[in-house]
Amino acid sequence: MQQPMEEEKVFKDPVHKYIYVQDQTIWDLINTREFQRLRRIRQLGTCFLTFHGAEHSRFSHSLGVYEVTRKIISQFERNQYEDWPREERLLCLCAALLHDVGHGPFSHSIEKTFGTHHEDWSCRIVLGNTEVNEVLKRVSPTFPQQVAGVIAKTYQQEIVVSLVSSQLDADRMDYLLRDAYFTGVNYGTFDLERILRVMRPYQGHIVVKESGMHAVEDYLMSRYQMYWQVYFHPVTRSAEVVLHKIFQRAKQLFEEGYPFHFLLEPLPSLFGNRLTTEEYHLLDEALMQTVLMQWTMEEDAVLADLCSRFLQRRLFKYVTLEIMDVGMLERLREKMGNLGLDPSYYLEVDFPSDQSYDVYRPGEQDEKLPILLLDAHDTLTEISRKSEIVRSISGIQNGKYHLYYPQELVLKHLPALDKEIRKLLRS
Amino acid sequence: MQQPMEEEKVFKDPVHKYIYVQDQTIWDLINTREFQRLRRIRQLGTCFLTFHGAEHSRFSHSLGVYEVTRKIISQFERNQYEDWPREERLLCLCAALLHDVGHGPFSHSIEKTFGTHHEDWSCRIVLGNTEVNEVLKRVSPTFPQQVAGVIAKTYQQEIVVSLVSSQLDADRMDYLLRDAYFTGVNYGTFDLERILRVMRPYQGHIVVKESGMHAVEDYLMSRYQMYWQVYFHPVTRSAEVVLHKIFQRAKQLFEEGYPFHFLLEPLPSLFGNRLTTEEYHLLDEALMQTVLMQWTMEEDAVLADLCSRFLQRRLFKYVTLEIMDVGMLERLREKMGNLGLDPSYYLEVDFPSDQSYDVYRPGEQDEKLPILLLDAHDTLTEISRKSEIVRSISGIQNGKYHLYYPQELVLKHLPALDKEIRKLLRS
Amino acid sequence: MQQPMEEEKVFKDPVHKYIYVQDQTIWDLINTREFQRLRRIRQLGTCFLTFHGAEHSRFSHSLGVYEVTRKIISQFERNQYEDWPREERLLCLCAALLHDVGHGPFSHSIEKTFGTHHEDWSCRIVLGNTEVNEVLKRVSPTFPQQVAGVIAKTYQQEIVVSLVSSQLDADRMDYLLRDAYFTGVNYGTFDLERILRVMRPYQGHIVVKESGMHAVEDYLMSRYQMYWQVYFHPVTRSAEVVLHKIFQRAKQLFEEGYPFHFLLEPLPSLFGNRLTTEEYHLLDEALMQTVLMQWTMEEDAVLADLCSRFLQRRLFKYVTLEIMDVGMLERLREKMGNLGLDPSYYLEVDFPSDQSYDVYRPGEQDEKLPILLLDAHDTLTEISRKSEIVRSISGIQNGKYHLYYPQELVLKHLPALDKEIRKLLRS
Amino acid sequence: MQQPMEEEKVFKDPVHKYIYVQDQTIWDLINTREFQRLRRIRQLGTCFLTFHGAEHSRFSHSLGVYEVTRKIISQFERNQYEDWPREERLLCLCAALLHDVGHGPFSHSIEKTFGTHHEDWSCRIVLGNTEVNEVLKRVSPTFPQQVAGVIAKTYQQEIVVSLVSSQLDADRMDYLLRDAYFTGVNYGTFDLERILRVMRPYQGHIVVKESGMHAVEDYLMSRYQMYWQVYFHPVTRSAEVVLHKIFQRAKQLFEEGYPFHFLLEPLPSLFGNRLTTEEYHLLDEALMQTVLMQWTMEEDAVLADLCSRFLQRRLFKYVTLEIMDVGMLERLREKMGNLGLDPSYYLEVDFPSDQSYDVYRPGEQDEKLPILLLDAHDTLTEISRKSEIVRSISGIQNGKYHLYYPQELVLKHLPALDKEIRKLLRS
Repeated sequence: MQQPMEEEKVFKDPVHKYIYVQDQTIWDLINTREFQRLRRIRQLGTCFLTFHGAEHSRFSHSLGVYEVTRKIISQFERNQYEDWPREERLLCLCAALLHDVGHGPFSHSIEKTFGTHHEDWSCRIVLGNTEVNEVLKRVSPTFPQQVAGVIAKTYQQEIVVSLVSSQLDADRMDYLLRDAYFTGVNYGTFDLERILRVMRPYQGHIVVKESGMHAVEDYLMSRYQMYWQVYFHPVTRSAEVVLHKIFQRAKQLFEEGYPFHFLLEPLPSLFGNRLTTEEYHLLDEALMQTVLMQWTMEEDAVLADLCSRFLQRRLFKYVTLEIMDVGMLERLREKMGNLGLDPSYYLEVDFPSDQSYDVYRPGEQDEKLPILLLDAHDTLTEISRKSEIVRSISGIQNGKYHLYYPQELVLKHLPALDKEIRKLLRS
Repeated sequence: MQQPMEEEKVFKDPVHKYIYVQDQTIWDLINTREFQRLRRIRQLGTCFLTFHGAEHSRFSHSLGVYEVTRKIISQFERNQYEDWPREERLLCLCAALLHDVGHGPFSHSIEKTFGTHHEDWSCRIVLGNTEVNEVLKRVSPTFPQQVAGVIAKTYQQEIVVSLVSSQLDADRMDYLLRDAYFTGVNYGTFDLERILRVMRPYQGHIVVKESGMHAVEDYLMSRYQMYWQVYFHPVTRSAEVVLHKIFQRAKQLFEEGYPFHFLLEPLPSLFGNRLTTEEYHLLDEALMQTVLMQWTMEEDAVLADLCSRFLQRRLFKYVTLEIMDVGMLERLREKMGNLGLDPSYYLEVDFPSDQSYDVYRPGEQDEKLPILLLDAHDTLTEISRKSEIVRSISGIQNGKYHLYYPQELVLKHLPALDKEIRKLLRS
Repeated sequence: MQQPMEEEKVFKDPVHKYIYVQDQTIWDLINTREFQRLRRIRQLGTCFLTFHGAEHSRFSHSLGVYEVTRKIISQFERNQYEDWPREERLLCLCAALLHDVGHGPFSHSIEKTFGTHHEDWSCRIVLGNTEVNEVLKRVSPTFPQQVAGVIAKTYQQEIVVSLVSSQLDADRMDYLLRDAYFTGVNYGTFDLERILRVMRPYQGHIVVKESGMHAVEDYLMSRYQMYWQVYFHPVTRSAEVVLHKIFQRAKQLFEEGYPFHFLLEPLPSLFGNRLTTEEYHLLDEALMQTVLMQWTMEEDAVLADLCSRFLQRRLFKYVTLEIMDVGMLERLREKMGNLGLDPSYYLEVDFPSDQSYDVYRPGEQDEKLPILLLDAHDTLTEISRKSEIVRSISGIQNGKYHLYYPQELVLKHLPALDKEIRKLLRS
Repeated sequence: MQQPMEEEKVFKDPVHKYIYVQDQTIWDLINTREFQRLRRIRQLGTCFLTFHGAEHSRFSHSLGVYEVTRKIISQFERNQYEDWPREERLLCLCAALLHDVGHGPFSHSIEKTFGTHHEDWSCRIVLGNTEVNEVLKRVSPTFPQQVAGVIAKTYQQEIVVSLVSSQLDADRMDYLLRDAYFTGVNYGTFDLERILRVMRPYQGHIVVKESGMHAVEDYLMSRYQMYWQVYFHPVTRSAEVVLHKIFQRAKQLFEEGYPFHFLLEPLPSLFGNRLTTEEYHLLDEALMQTVLMQWTMEEDAVLADLCSRFLQRRLFKYVTLEIMDVGMLERLREKMGNLGLDPSYYLEVDFPSDQSYDVYRPGEQDEKLPILLLDAHDTLTEISRKSEIVRSISGIQNGKYHLYYPQELVLKHLPALDKEIRKLLRS
C-alpha cells in the first residue's frame, strides 16, 4: 500500500540543498536500524587519509541517490512522457535508497580478503528478517523481491534498473557531486539540472536528447577526473594496501589459531565466512577501527605494526614504475626477507585501471548499459559513435604501476640493496 | 630551532581551498599520533543526527584554525605592521593547530558526566610524554610550556592568545565557515578575506579598523545564526540528552558494581576519573560507538534501550514550554515512575543559552576579550558602543525551555496522564 | 485566455540556475520590445564604478523576480494551502515580471532631477499602446488594468500585492541574491529555499511560520548589509552626485536656451517633462552614455568637465563629517566660488539613510506591509516584537554626513582655504 | 621607474574574490580614460542575448587577466624558481592588463566587416598619444615599446609572451572562469590554484609538472565545453549574423551615398577605414547601440528591419544542415529574391570551428605555443603525446552547418517554396 505523507519532510543536504521525502515508505525506510547503520560507514573508505574532507558516510550518499532519482522521475511525470511507467515510481525510489544498504566498512579491502559482496548483502537485508524488509512488505508481499531484483539488476524492466545502475545513473550522479563537494576538488561538478533536462524515457530505455551530448561528455569527464585525481590517488591506494595487508595478516593468524588478545564478535564469523544478517549489522566502521586500535597492542609484530601505521597514517611510500621489471621485484622481495621484512605484508605492486565509459558489448560479462543519444529523427545512437571525447575515454584506461613499501626500507637498509633498486627507491 | 620546509606542502581543503604548510614543525605535528587521532573525533558531536553532512572531524577543523592563523600573520607580515611581534609566529601557529588536540569523543556529554575538560587535556598532551611534546621540544626546551600557555590563555602576550581565543579568533572563523559548509546551511558564510583585511595588531591587541564594522557585524550574526539554527537545534539537543543519560546510567551501574558484559579499557579509568594520557589516546569516537553498540545487548534494560535509541536515532521527542511549570513537571515525573519509566533517564528539561557577543566586563569570571574598533584618530572603542546590531545580540540570549521525553509515553500511556500534561504533550 | 506552453522553456540564470517559463503569456511578454529594452538598463546604476561586477541589467533581475514568485506559488499549490487564491497565479507572475518595466537609465538621478517615477512608467507601459499591453489584453480585456493595479499597490487582494511589494517580497529576494552574486560580496546570500518553505498564505496575508523567525532575521540582515556595504558605498554615492550634477547643469542650460552641439531626441522632451511612451522607449542607458560622451566636447566647461569625470571615473573625493557644521560649509562654498568652482556643481553633502525593516504604522504615508509570524496557536505577531535583532535594525538607520568635492580643490587651492577647512579636507 | 604603492589596494571581484594592486603604474593604468573605456565594451559581445547573465565588460576581464598573472608571478617568486626572470615582472603585469585595451564594441562583427584588428589597436593605444602611453613612459622611455612587443608577441623573451598569450595563459584562465561565472554555466570551472601550482618557468618556457597533466586536461576540457556550449551557441551566432548584416548593409549604403538620418562621428571614419586613436576612443558599445536604435527609424527598410531585430531580439531562426546542399541553397536564394527578401542580408550559412588545443606545428601560420609536460627526469613532452583526451580535442573541431533565416520566410511564404526546402525549414 502506497501512502503519501501528510506533509512533505526535508533533510538539509549540502549537495542538493534539500532532500524531499513525500512517501511514508521512504520515511520509514530511512528510520530503520539497517539504514541508520550507514551513518557508520564512510562513503570513500580510506580516501579521508588523502583528502581530509572525505569523511562523509554512505548514509548521506544513499539519501542523495534517492533524491536524484526523485528529481528524474518528477521531471518525467511533469512532462508527461508517455514512455515512463508511472507505476514503478515507488520501486525506483526504494531501490535507489537501498542499493548501498549492504555496504560494510572499508568494503574494497574486506571484500577482497573475505569474498563478501555488498550487493549480495543489500539483497539479503532487503529480503531477510530486518526492519527494512518489514517496511517494504507493507507496500505489498512481493515488493521486497522487486526491490532486490532492481538492486541485483535482474528486474525485467530495464528502465527501472537503469535509473539506479547504468552508465548514467542516479548513483554516479550523486557520488561525483558529493565526493567532489566533500573532498573540495571541483572536477566532479557537472550540471545536474542540465543532464536531467535532456534525459528521456524512450521505448524502455533512458536516453539522452542529442542536443545534450556535450553535457554528457562533461559528466563523463567528471567521472574520469574523479577516478584519476581522487579515487586512484596513490596515497589512498597506499592506505588500501596497508588495510588489505592487515586483514590478510589477521585472517592468516586466525587460521593458524593465533590467540588474539582482542577479538570481538562478529569477527570470527567474518573470518569463517559465515556471517548472519544480524551479525553483519554489528560490522560497522566504528567496530573495525576499534579493533585496529586494540590490535596495535597485539603481540604479533606484523599485525601490530600495520595497524598502527594505518591509524597514525604512516602509510607505505610509493614509486612509479615505468616498466614492470619482474626480476628486480623478485630480488627486492628476497632482500626484504633477508632483512626481516616479510614481503607478503610489506611490498605491493598496484595497477589501477578503470573504464570511464564502457562501450556496450552485448554478451560480455558484466556488460554495462550504454548511453544512447536520441536525435530529431528518433534514431538512437550509442554516444561514443558521435563524440570523439567519449571515444578517448572509452575502453580501459590504465594508470602506472606503483610499488608500495615502508620507508624504513630506504632509511635503514638502503646500503644492503643492490644499485638498481637503490636508484629506483630514491627517485 | 625553527626550520622552513624545502618545499611548501598543501592539503586540499573544501573551506580554504588549500592549507599551506611551510614549517617543518607544523608538518611534524600534523603527523603525530595524537594529532592524527583527531580524525576519529567528530567536530560537531551529535549534530550529524540532525544535519547529516556534519560528519567532519576535529582534524579538519584544527588544520583550518591553523590556516586562518597563518593567513592573518602572513597579512600582518606583508604589510609590515610594527605592532606585530614577528618572533611569535611559530608559537601562534602551533597553538592554533593544537588548541583542540585534547578533545575527546562527544565532549559535551562526557565532560558533563565525568568532569573532564578538553583544554586541560590539550595542555596535558602538549606537556606530557607524547609525540607532540617531542616535536615541540625540538624548537626549544621551553616551547611546549609556551604553547600550553597560549592554549590555557595564561601566556603573557595578549595578542598571541587573542589570535587563538577571543571573540574574533581563528577558531571561530574556521568553525563557522566549516560547520556551515558541511551542514549545508549558509548562515555561517561571512567574508573571511574582508575580516582579515580590516584586522590590525595595535598596542598589544588585535583590533579592527572602524571601516570594517559592518563586516564584523556580519561575522557576529553568522555566529548567532549558527548557534540558534544549528548548534542548538532541538534534535541535536535531544541526541545530547540521550547520550548524557547513557553515560549517567553507565556511571551509576559501574559504581553499583554492575557486571558489564562489555567494558573495554580505558572505560573503567574514565569512570574512575583516573585516565592517563596514554589511555586517553584510546578514547576515540570509534571506541565509544562500539561500546554503545555492544551495550544495546546489555541486560540492564535502561542502558540497552538508551543505547539503541541513540544508534538507531530513535531520539526523545520534545515540546516547547512557554513557561516553566515546576508543579506539573513534578506530577509528570511521578506519573512516569508509576508507569515504569525512570524519570531520571527518560525526562529532561533543556534550556539553551548563548552569548553571541560578550561585552567585556573586566574581573568577571571567564571574561572574554572584546572586539575593539580603531578609528581614524587612533581611538579604540568597544564595538557594541557603535553598533546597534551588536548590542542586540550582546548579553545572554536564551532559547525556550524544551521538555524531552520518549514518544511511547504519549503513544502508550497518554490516558494515564492528567489533562494538563496530555494537552502539553500533544501540542 | 490562459495558455500553458507545449513545452516548458528555460533561461540559464546564474542565481536561480534555471528560470522556468510555463505560460505562453509570460513567454510573449519577455519577447516584447519594452521588456527587451530592460537589457539596456543596468540594475544598479552607477554601482559598477565601485563594484566592477555590477554590470547586470534590469532584464535579468526582472526574470529573477518572476522566478521567485513562480517558486513561491508553486510551493503554495503543491501543498494545497487553502488560503491561496489559485486564480491569481498568472496575475502575480505578470506583475512580478513587469513591475520594473518602467525603469529608465540611472533612475535615481534622473527621477530626482526631472521628477519622473519608474512605477508610473511601468503602469503607462502596461496600459498604453505597447506590445506589453497587447499581450496582456489577450488574457482578458481588463487584465492590463489588474496588472497595473498590482504594480501600483491598489489591487484589492493584499496577498497578491504583497508577493511583489512588501518587506518580504520576490523583488527584494531576487535583488539581494543577484546583486550579491554580481558584485561578488556575499552579504546577500540568505537561504531562499528555507524562506520559501516557511511562508504561508493565511487569511489574505503572506505570513511566516514562527519556526522560520531566524531565517527571516538572516534575510533582513542581508538587506541591511547590502545597503550599507554596497548600495550606500561612498564611491557609488560620489558617482550619483556627479551624475545628478550633470543632469542639473544640462537642465539649467536647456532652460537658458544654451545651444547644445549634441542633443538627441527624446532629451528635449525629458527636459520639458513631456515624454511619450514611444519616446520613453528610446531613453536607455546606451543613449545616456552616448550623450554624456558627446557632452565631454561641449563648450560649457562645467558640463564637459562633469561628463568626462563620470566617464573616466574621476569622481569626487569625500570626507566624513562627524558633525554638520553649517557655518564652515557656507565659508567653503564662498571660497570655492572665489576660486572659480561653482559650488552648486562641485560640492554636495550626502546623508544616506534607510529602513532595513519598517515596523508597520498604519495610516502613515508610504506604509509598508509588516512581516507577521504565525505561531502554533494561529496567532499572528509582528516580527519585531519577538526578535531583538529585527528591533535593532527597525526604524531609520542613518549613515554619516559625507562631503563630496573635486580633488583639485585640495591639490591646487588648499592654501587659499582657511585652516579648519584645510584640516577637514586633509583628514 | 617602478614604484610600489604605499598601501596595497583591492578591487572586489566575484571570480578571484579580490584583485590586488601593488604597483603605482598598474593603479595609474587602470585610471586612464582608455582603460576605463573598457567598461563600455561587453566581454562576450552578443552572447547576453542567449545567456542573459553575460553582461560583463572587458574591464573586469582585463583586471582578471592581470590578477591571474600576478598570482602566477607571485608564486614563481615565492618559490624562488631560478628560471624566472624577475626583472620582467612589471612588463608582464602591464601587458596582461592592457592586452585587450584595443577591443571595440562587438569586435567580431566589426572586424569582419571593416578589417580592423583589436590587437593592432591595443598596440596603437600603448604607443600613441594616450594616457596609457604617458603612464608607461614614466617607467622608462622604451617601456611602451616593450609592452606593445609582448601584446604583438614579438618580444624576444618567450616566457613573458607565453604568460599572456599561449595555450595556457592568464587570458584564457580568466575568461573561462569569468564567462562561466557570469553566464551561470559551470563548464568553465577548473581548479585555478591547482594549475598555478603545477606551472614552472623552465629554460625560457612555462611548463607543467607531469603530475599536473590531469589538471591541464580538465582546463582544456573547460575550454572545449565553453566553446561548444556558450561561445558557439546557435542563438549567439544568430545575433552575430544579424549584426554582421547590419554593418554590411550600412557600409554598402554609405558607399552608395545614402543620406543617413543619423550618422554620428566617428562612424564615417570607421566606414572609410581611417579612424584615429582619438576617434577610436569614442567608438564604444553605447554609441553602437544608440546608432542601432536610431537606425530602426531609417528609411532603408533592410537596415531599419535588421536593427530592430537585433535590439528586440527577433533574431534569425536556424536549421541544422546534415549536408551542405549547394544546389538547394541556390534555389532558396533565388526564391527569397523573388519574394522580396534580399538573400545577401536574410540568409547565412554558418560553420563554427575551433581548436581546443593546437598541437604545435612550427612554421605554420599563427602557430601557438604548445603545452609542455616536465617529468621527473627533466624531459619535456608535448602534452598530446601523453594524454589521449588532449589528443581527442586536438586539431580542428567542426560544428555542423547552420542555416540562418528570418522566421517570416516560413510563416508567410512557405507554400511558395519547393518541397525539399519546406521540409528542411520545418524540421
